[in-house]
Amino acid sequence: MTRIRFQQSLDDLKEKLLVMAGLAEQQIQRAIESYRVRDLSICDLVDRSEQAINRMERDIDQVALDLLAMEQPMAIDLRFILAVIKINSDIERVGDAAKSISDRVRTIESMGTIELPVDIPRMSALASDMVRRSLQAFIEANAELARSVLSMDDAVDSMNRAAHGALSALMAAESHHAPQALTALMICRSLERVADHATNIAEDVIFWVQGADVRHQGSVNAGQV
Amino acid sequence: MTRIRFQQSLDDLKEKLLVMAGLAEQQIQRAIESYRVRDLSICDLVDRSEQAINRMERDIDQVALDLLAMEQPMAIDLRFILAVIKINSDIERVGDAAKSISDRVRTIESMGTIELPVDIPRMSALASDMVRRSLQAFIEANAELARSVLSMDDAVDSMNRAAHGALSALMAAESHHAPQALTALMICRSLERVADHATNIAEDVIFWVQGADVRHQGSVNAGQV
Repeated sequence: MTRIRFQQSLDDLKEKLLVMAGLAEQQIQRAIESYRVRDLSICDLVDRSEQAINRMERDIDQVALDLLAMEQPMAIDLRFILAVIKINSDIERVGDAAKSISDRVRTIESMGTIELPVDIPRMSALASDMVRRSLQAFIEANAELARSVLSMDDAVDSMNRAAHGALSALMAAESHHAPQALTALMICRSLERVADHATNIAEDVIFWVQGADVRHQGSVNAGQV
Repeated sequence: MTRIRFQQSLDDLKEKLLVMAGLAEQQIQRAIESYRVRDLSICDLVDRSEQAINRMERDIDQVALDLLAMEQPMAIDLRFILAVIKINSDIERVGDAAKSISDRVRTIESMGTIELPVDIPRMSALASDMVRRSLQAFIEANAELARSVLSMDDAVDSMNRAAHGALSALMAAESHHAPQALTALMICRSLERVADHATNIAEDVIFWVQGADVRHQGSVNAGQV
């Protein structure tokens, strides 16, 4: 394979990953829309697209593996392909989170609607923004933008903690609403997980671009076993 | 690097991964022990070892990357190194799950002890058994053993669903116990996640040994977008 054709193969791989990522993002939006309007036909759509994402994940892994095996790339190209393999896995799990949310919507829909002390669409917007930014950083090979995603994770964590507190209090105070509150809480956990995957993607972008491993930086010089 | 030295490097990489995996398994045991006896000094130990696992993850990734970059391995060696990179990430997340459980034990300890309708040590024993088997399959390059792990995942899922049902019912019936029940439920979710990571590891072993991608097999021929 010539250098130009190899570069084209890398671009194709990136393109495949972005198509899959677009679908995963859309899945989160659909799942939250099904929550907002309690429309189970949207949940059916989430179920079907979940399987498409799984197929895309396998395909991308295979292409990445073939490129590694046949081209034996060095340095930055090698790091790029490894980043794709890792990001691929995170995007698939974003799809899993959308599916979990959609399953919870089916549960909560059967329980009757009550006012819950949690703004799930807002939390979802923030988590989705993190996913979008981490992918934008991947497209632009922009480590600076990737770093900005890392700092957003705390906001989602604190929204999740606030939701946890408010929903636990509701369960304790009005036990007949416990099932709805619990289901909403599980949706918040899934969104927190989406934010974690965006963080992983951002870290992989930084690793690719800078060759630096930024995971767990806070703990590098911390405690011993 | 000679073929013999390269093989030695692969063995060293495997050894590093197994040391880390042993620590992650121990972390789950410690976290569950801290739950069982409500001993927060064990939680402190979990916190410290978590950081050691994070360091090991970075180190293993770096060694794997160096081997890929310098040795440009082919076929089964390449698949082995990719499997190590993926298993590495799953083991680190088993460590994360132990840390989450330990954090929940701190919460639940402050609430006062009640009898909960869930056997967390039993669920943990099953999830840990899956992790151990998946690693044994990795040590032996045993795809058959890895497949046996995949079939165990359903048992953990069904224990988790049963726990979810019993704890939700408790919350609804005795709302003053809702905080404890909710915390126990979060511990069950973490254990279910441990089982998922064991499943991922088993799939990576099969991929390495057989070159077959077994992920999402149930859905290969299923629905369309």
